[in-house]
Amino acid sequence: MRIVLKDILAVLPREGQDVVCRTDIYLEGDKITGIGEAPEGFSEDKRIDGKDRLVIPGLINAHTHSYMALLRNVADDLTFEDWLFGHIEPIEDRLGPEDAYWGACLAILEMMRSGTTCFSDMQMHIHQTSRAVSESGMRAVISRGLVGSGADEAGQTRLKEAYEEKEAWKDCSRLTFFLGPHASYSCDEDFQRIVAREAAREHMGVHIHLSESVNEVENIRSQYGASPIALAKRAGLFDGLAAVAHCVHVDGVDLDILKECQVSVITNPASNMKLGNGFAPVPDMLEKGINVCIGTDGAASNNSLNMFHEMNLLGLIHKGVRQKADCVSAREIFRMATIGGAKALGMEKETGSIEVGKKADLAILNLRTPSMTPRNDLLAGLCYSANGSEVETVIIDGQITMEEGKVLTLDEERIYGEVERICRRLGIGMKD
Amino acid sequence: MRIVLKDILAVLPREGQDVVCRTDIYLEGDKITGIGEAPEGFSEDKRIDGKDRLVIPGLINAHTHSYMALLRNVADDLTFEDWLFGHIEPIEDRLGPEDAYWGACLAILEMMRSGTTCFSDMQMHIHQTSRAVSESGMRAVISRGLVGSGADEAGQTRLKEAYEEKEAWKDCSRLTFFLGPHASYSCDEDFQRIVAREAAREHMGVHIHLSESVNEVENIRSQYGASPIALAKRAGLFDGLAAVAHCVHVDGVDLDILKECQVSVITNPASNMKLGNGFAPVPDMLEKGINVCIGTDGAASNNSLNMFHEMNLLGLIHKGVRQKADCVSAREIFRMATIGGAKALGMEKETGSIEVGKKADLAILNLRTPSMTPRNDLLAGLCYSANGSEVETVIIDGQITMEEGKVLTLDEERIYGEVERICRRLGIGMKD
Repeated sequence: MRIVLKDILAVLPREGQDVVCRTDIYLEGDKITGIGEAPEGFSEDKRIDGKDRLVIPGLINAHTHSYMALLRNVADDLTFEDWLFGHIEPIEDRLGPEDAYWGACLAILEMMRSGTTCFSDMQMHIHQTSRAVSESGMRAVISRGLVGSGADEAGQTRLKEAYEEKEAWKDCSRLTFFLGPHASYSCDEDFQRIVAREAAREHMGVHIHLSESVNEVENIRSQYGASPIALAKRAGLFDGLAAVAHCVHVDGVDLDILKECQVSVITNPASNMKLGNGFAPVPDMLEKGINVCIGTDGAASNNSLNMFHEMNLLGLIHKGVRQKADCVSAREIFRMATIGGAKALGMEKETGSIEVGKKADLAILNLRTPSMTPRNDLLAGLCYSANGSEVETVIIDGQITMEEGKVLTLDEERIYGEVERICRRLGIGMKD
Repeated sequence: MRIVLKDILAVLPREGQDVVCRTDIYLEGDKITGIGEAPEGFSEDKRIDGKDRLVIPGLINAHTHSYMALLRNVADDLTFEDWLFGHIEPIEDRLGPEDAYWGACLAILEMMRSGTTCFSDMQMHIHQTSRAVSESGMRAVISRGLVGSGADEAGQTRLKEAYEEKEAWKDCSRLTFFLGPHASYSCDEDFQRIVAREAAREHMGVHIHLSESVNEVENIRSQYGASPIALAKRAGLFDGLAAVAHCVHVDGVDLDILKECQVSVITNPASNMKLGNGFAPVPDMLEKGINVCIGTDGAASNNSLNMFHEMNLLGLIHKGVRQKADCVSAREIFRMATIGGAKALGMEKETGSIEVGKKADLAILNLRTPSMTPRNDLLAGLCYSANGSEVETVIIDGQITMEEGKVLTLDEERIYGEVERICRRLGIGMKD
């Protein structure tokens, strides 16, 4: 399909900075083929009128656990241990693959509606999630969550599942597979070493949680004489493409390692606050030149998968913590939510910005809303004023997946019904 | 008009706690006249179907500067001094009354769309704001911003304006007037004393900014030998109904004063972070039994007037700052945004909860949205998952002001046009 976005305001990269310009954007097949000027011989199948609209690169949610959308608001205002062991894990143990499928559908629906066109997921129900991604037109990186001790069978079985899944979807260009060693407290050093070797052999990226809580860092230090980040480096996990979620409790040495190994940090502001873990030192990471991107984490610890919400938090919290209003800017945050995420996933040549030759992964916002009026500074508006409901049309891989507020690739009503049914069965939904 | 909300989920107060129940709610004229059971002889003019809907008491934005919606996103990521003196004040000096009117219209539109049914405003263009409130069907408390030194003429003129305005709108039950001594750095002790005396004489509440920044507290302490809060008490400002915005840099003595004088604190989480001031000690205030409510502050320092955004921030930040996930709960926050705000404005018998005999100030949310699915805990959902776009219908003082997403009492398209025109004239809007 050939689409033209006619006379539209667009966020475009110019010399490492994003600017807002009025232009025409041409899409053919899965790609952006022209900006400002039509490609030779272009004839449109569809025209989208740019009046009062802003097109942005689709947002990239670089760390989530999609099926956990089922567990939204199931356990709140609790200490981390009570939250995880007292509430979340007992429910997770009762979730079947079909439940995970509907959870992933709900998550994808929420992300698409709020302008996310690519997400990076870590979990065990990867086949059901891949199915939901494939059907919905979404783009995703799926990491099989891995837990293991040395060469134990559990770890090996999960690695095998990861390869099988990668093989099964090799014809779907919207699906990429990473290995997801869960964390240093659930994967010992020998197993981390095995995962690192396998990732290199299979040319797969690595997605891991590190240094989320004070306790975790203290325990790993006393067990291994190294921080979780230093341990992961020692085990070889940072030899290839690697993205690390959280990095809340990190010191200068950790930041040096992340920079030197070109590891991307995925910051999860809502989740880190929600579970009482604190604030990752994002301004220091940026100053050091580390690639930082943004994740919502799962809906059980957020409790939303809306990247506008996350951009907004990121824009505010560090100013409060450091009592310094200029320590991070809207422009930096918007790049973290787009091209920063693409880099973390090894996709910066494919997506994360509006450029000729890249995939057509776009979100179009209605500016005729109170939050986006007046248009004094639209990049600041995206970060500080928008709430995601301004997103009206979404294009992923050249396909219109949502148009003027209607999601075309998912059966929204059915998803709501199935999810409520599952939650009632699990005993967590409303009795009403 | 007699309206029934039929078979609807509702947030209702039960013994000091909010609960979600399914019921029928009956409205007659400006009031709620029945819950569960129809009042004798009730016959409806209009029925609202409660299927997949949740009705909540309208939110109360207890501290804002409405006309500043014009200045949204005009100056961001700047230090407080640069923000205020370099950017905001020079623009404010060029704003005329008609500009302020359209700014207030935009603010009211944004608040109404996100479920706010009452706001408390401090500023100088009070006549234009009152006009916008009156026309839009909104409820508001308007405080004439007062700046003065002893019995100087400037202070007296402003006081006179406040009384005239109160007199002018005495027949509009949706408008209440407070006195708004700006802050302790802009109102000296003698002037604070005059305002306190006048407030008592005129039976008006007091609305003031105190202890927002470290600098302010240090300066006032060195000038008066008292904190801004101790000074206000000494001047008599806490002898009657008083609500204090910010209270970020307060100590134990300040909290004791606030409690003892039954002063309400209006916390403004986004603004305090945005301008690098930090975090008010809200969990300590709650523990002490101080009435805490929530404000967005003006759109220039937020940059949104969406109370769902503010509830969400409040639910997250203190958990992060204290590394304690149970230091404030969704239930406490929802009360702060509703009945807490009503108490701060002296309106707890009139609004802030769904009870028979209270004003019909209500917001109805569509639960058939990703953010509110599944319905595992709707009060947690209001605080942690909703973004305000779920609000579909709003009733204020018994009048339907927004219905199924359409605002009935304001000309939305005209507001957008006028605001853009004003911003272009002021040289802050987009050239496009």
